[in-house]
Amino acid sequence: MLKARSVDEVVDAIATLGVRGAPAIGVFGAYGCALAAQQLSGTDLELAFARIREARPTAVNLAWAVDRVRARADGDYLAEARTIHDEQIEIDRLIGESAIELFPNRGNVLTHCNTGALATAGGGTALGAIIAAYRSGKSIAVFASETRPLLQGARLTMYELGQAGVPATLIVDSAAAITMQQKDIALVIVGADRIARNGDVANKIGTYAHAIAAAHHGIPFYVAAPRSTFDFSLASGEGIPIEERRAEEVRIAEEDRVYNPAFDVTPGRLVTAFITEYGILRPPYFETIPDLETRPNFLAARRH
Amino acid sequence: MLKARSVDEVVDAIATLGVRGAPAIGVFGAYGCALAAQQLSGTDLELAFARIREARPTAVNLAWAVDRVRARADGDYLAEARTIHDEQIEIDRLIGESAIELFPNRGNVLTHCNTGALATAGGGTALGAIIAAYRSGKSIAVFASETRPLLQGARLTMYELGQAGVPATLIVDSAAAITMQQKDIALVIVGADRIARNGDVANKIGTYAHAIAAAHHGIPFYVAAPRSTFDFSLASGEGIPIEERRAEEVRIAEEDRVYNPAFDVTPGRLVTAFITEYGILRPPYFETIPDLETRPNFLAARRH
Repeated sequence: MLKARSVDEVVDAIATLGVRGAPAIGVFGAYGCALAAQQLSGTDLELAFARIREARPTAVNLAWAVDRVRARADGDYLAEARTIHDEQIEIDRLIGESAIELFPNRGNVLTHCNTGALATAGGGTALGAIIAAYRSGKSIAVFASETRPLLQGARLTMYELGQAGVPATLIVDSAAAITMQQKDIALVIVGADRIARNGDVANKIGTYAHAIAAAHHGIPFYVAAPRSTFDFSLASGEGIPIEERRAEEVRIAEEDRVYNPAFDVTPGRLVTAFITEYGILRPPYFETIPDLETRPNFLAARRH
Repeated sequence: MLKARSVDEVVDAIATLGVRGAPAIGVFGAYGCALAAQQLSGTDLELAFARIREARPTAVNLAWAVDRVRARADGDYLAEARTIHDEQIEIDRLIGESAIELFPNRGNVLTHCNTGALATAGGGTALGAIIAAYRSGKSIAVFASETRPLLQGARLTMYELGQAGVPATLIVDSAAAITMQQKDIALVIVGADRIARNGDVANKIGTYAHAIAAAHHGIPFYVAAPRSTFDFSLASGEGIPIEERRAEEVRIAEEDRVYNPAFDVTPGRLVTAFITEYGILRPPYFETIPDLETRPNFLAARRH
C-alpha cells in the first residue's frame, strides 16, 4: 500500500502513476493538500498546492480538487478532502445506477484501461457501471483491452472483474476491432480524464481508436464520468494538454525514437452518451453539457 | 540463426514463429519439403508434406509453396525451393518498384507488424516498399506500431528501418489513431497473409483497426503482397481460418481468460489499392483480382 508523508511524495506518487485514474488522483490530491497544510504555511503552502495541482497535466479532477480544498473558508483542509472522498463514493454509486438501463439483459461489452475502485477511490466509473449492471441481475460478459503501455486493463481491470465475479476476457488493444466484429459487442464503455464543453473526451491512449471502431460497427460508445471531470471552461478538446510519457515505457532498443502520448482526444460526435451522477447526457452536447454545469450540487445540499 | 534438420524441426519452426511472415514461411516451407524428400519417401513423405502445409493455417503462401514443390515433375524439390526463393527476391524488388509512385516526395507513413527482409526471404513487401521509396530519394519518415502481443514492429521493423537509415518512430498499437490525427500521415501500408477474391485481407491482428482508422481520417490504406498471397479460390474473407494463439502470449494472471486471434480480416472496401509484382490493383477487386490470376508467370517465362 502506497503512503505519502510529504509533498514530494504526494507529487511523486501522482507523477509516476503510483496513484492513477482521474477521480482517484483528485481524491489523493485533496488529501495531499491537507497533508501539506499540516507541514507548511504561507508561500511554501501555496507552492505546494501549485506543485500538487500540476503533477499531471491531463486529468482535470486534480486541479478541481486542489482548488476546492484551497477555497475552504475555515481552512479545515482535511475535512474538505474527506468530503471530496465521501462524495466520490456516492458519485460512483449514482453513475452505476444511471448506467444500468443502458446495458442489455444479456450480452457482451468492451472496456479499456481501468476505471474501477482502483481508479476512483469509490466504486469506479465505467467499470463501476459494468459491475452495477451485473449486480442488478444482467448477464454481462466483458472484453477488457490490455491498455499498453502500462497494461492497466490486464493488471487492474481483469483483477477487479474477477473479484466482482463478472465473466471477463482479456484482449490486446489492437484486437478490439475484430472483437467488435466477431463477438457481438452490445456497447463500449470507458472513463475520462477531461471532457470539453462540446463533448470531446481526453482519456487513456487507445480510447479514440476504440471509438472509431465502435462507430464503424454501429456500436454505442459511452463515457462514464463525474461532473468534476467536465472542464466547462474548454470549448473543445483542442485545448486539452496531452501528456507524453517516457520512451522507456514502449521501446525495446535503447536508440529507438518513440511517440508515447498517454492520452488521446475522442471527438464528442463519436460519443453516444455520457453517464454522470446527474444521469445520462445525450447530444447536442453544446446544450446538455453547459446545462450540467448549472445543476445544483445535490451532494452538498444533502449534507446541510 | 535458426536451422531445421528434420520435418519435426521444420514444422516446429513454423508453428512457434521461429520463421514468420507469409512469404518467408512459403520459402522456408519449400526448403522444408526438399529436406523431407532427402529423408523420407512414399507415404511418409506425403505425410510430411501435409504436416508442413498445415503448420500454420492463415498464411496461404505456405500451402501454395508446398503444392508447387510437390508438383515438380522431375522430383528435384531443392531446385524448386531455390526457384521459389529466387522469385521471392525478384517479386519483392518489383513490389518496391510498383509502390514508389504512391509515396509522397516528403511525408509520414504508418506501418504495422514486420514485412521486411526478415518476413519474406527477399527485400520485404510493405517495408520493402517503404525502403524502396526512401532509396528512390523520397523524404519519408515512418511510424511503426509495436504489434502486440509478439512485438514484431518493436523488435523487427524498428531494427530494419534503422539498418536502412529510414527515420522511424515507435508507437503502441492503440496510438495509431491519434498518430493519424496528429502527425499528418500520408498513407498506411501493410502486408498480408491471405487475400480473398473480393479484396478481403487476412493480416496481423490490428490491421483491421488501422484500416478503420485510416478510412475515418481519409488516409489511403495500401496492402503490399505478392500474387502467391492471393487465394483465388476464396470468394470472401469469411472463409479464411483465423489462427488463435496461446493465452500466455497476452495474460498476466494465470487464471485470466484470453481471446488471442493472431490475425484479423480487413474488408476489401477499406483497401485503397494492392501493390503486387504485377503493379497496382485498384477496385473493383471482383474484377481486378480475378484478372491478376490470369496473368502469365513472367518470372517463369524469363527463366526459359
